[in-house]
Amino acid sequence: MKNIKLTIEYDGTHYHGWQSQINALTVQEVVSQAIGILTDQGCNLIGASRTDTGVHALGQVANFMTDSSIPPDKFCYAINNLLARDIVIKKSEEVPLEFHSRFSAKGKRYKYLILNSSQPSVFYRDRAMYIKRELHLESMQEAAQHFLGTHDFSAFKSTGDSIKSNIRTITGVSLDRNEDVIEFQITGNGFLYNMVRIIVGTLVEVGQGKIRPKEIPDIIRAGQRIRAGKTAVPQGLYLVEVYY
Amino acid sequence: MKNIKLTIEYDGTHYHGWQSQINALTVQEVVSQAIGILTDQGCNLIGASRTDTGVHALGQVANFMTDSSIPPDKFCYAINNLLARDIVIKKSEEVPLEFHSRFSAKGKRYKYLILNSSQPSVFYRDRAMYIKRELHLESMQEAAQHFLGTHDFSAFKSTGDSIKSNIRTITGVSLDRNEDVIEFQITGNGFLYNMVRIIVGTLVEVGQGKIRPKEIPDIIRAGQRIRAGKTAVPQGLYLVEVYY
Repeated sequence: MKNIKLTIEYDGTHYHGWQSQINALTVQEVVSQAIGILTDQGCNLIGASRTDTGVHALGQVANFMTDSSIPPDKFCYAINNLLARDIVIKKSEEVPLEFHSRFSAKGKRYKYLILNSSQPSVFYRDRAMYIKRELHLESMQEAAQHFLGTHDFSAFKSTGDSIKSNIRTITGVSLDRNEDVIEFQITGNGFLYNMVRIIVGTLVEVGQGKIRPKEIPDIIRAGQRIRAGKTAVPQGLYLVEVYY
Repeated sequence: MKNIKLTIEYDGTHYHGWQSQINALTVQEVVSQAIGILTDQGCNLIGASRTDTGVHALGQVANFMTDSSIPPDKFCYAINNLLARDIVIKKSEEVPLEFHSRFSAKGKRYKYLILNSSQPSVFYRDRAMYIKRELHLESMQEAAQHFLGTHDFSAFKSTGDSIKSNIRTITGVSLDRNEDVIEFQITGNGFLYNMVRIIVGTLVEVGQGKIRPKEIPDIIRAGQRIRAGKTAVPQGLYLVEVYY
């Protein structure tokens, strides 16, 4: 028996997120089916992150057990041959049997794209949040720094999960503008449900002058969802990398 | 009567190019129909460039005559409301009656994207040419410089047009790599049919070591289509700007 780790890129536009569900197309289901065809075995594909509908991935990680004779590093090509063009397995490799893509993860990095221009762009229509009025970048950059460190992020979490602790550690944030596109990156040891999208929504309100950067520590401390910004649309979110 | 100039961005993936034709969806047709609905008049929409199937535009230019009372700078919003999400009118403005988007054009700039990475990316699937083996960038850059200046570009033209002169002047070329994406830009006073795509196909063969950079002047001089490279796929090509 071998444990195979996959690194997966996908355009989430046409999928109801990662996790299999009844009557909806998901990335997990599509990839599992392809593996099932190749190995002639049912496949329990474990993903590192349950990305939501419309969310993209540059480096989702998943693993599965198999006794297939397909060489581990060739699995990616075999699977890609069976997939639609909006999912690509970028790498496949054998990992120790105890490797679990979700529980073994030490951290994750996400990016979020905002198209900030006077007209929307057809090339970003499912790939970024669109905001017409110019955002104040320096304020957003100042506000973003306040998320660094270990905090209780209860104010930046949607209801719907059942985890015990809302404490997470953010180890890196960056926010840069390249022509009309603002790219936000955030790295941490874990993220609550919708946490990145709520942080982005809050930063956008900072960029619009509705929230001042120095209010952020207070919003975090108060722990009330209502004081943070709106949840940013899923289209702008990309799971970039999972760390082990 | 007013002459309205439009600057148009489109994702060419789902269109049979710019120019109207029977039984195929084109950008010209879709935009003309929208203008027809708004103005309640038939619309003769003249485009600067007849982009091919799958080719994109960041700044196609088109113009039409109308006696509509819609303010010229508001036309873009009105038209955008009627368009699918893969075409956006970025700007509309009144121009002198003698302005003709094709005949008044002094030059054009195109870009071409090549994804050069070990695995294809889902985010570039209809937006770049994909080449797996690493291309030799410096050779391509050296070769690209030879296209500058005024030449007879007969070797870089597909059959199918009926123009008289194959002499064109290229005023700018650049070729840069940003991570996995190679971006080629070319500016000139005009381009023959498929000229940019054949130049790119030739540069790719240079990057693969099949053609040496110093052979380019000879290939241009000989004027034989067979000595130049293959026509690069349309998906990587973008009409960036039309100069007047």
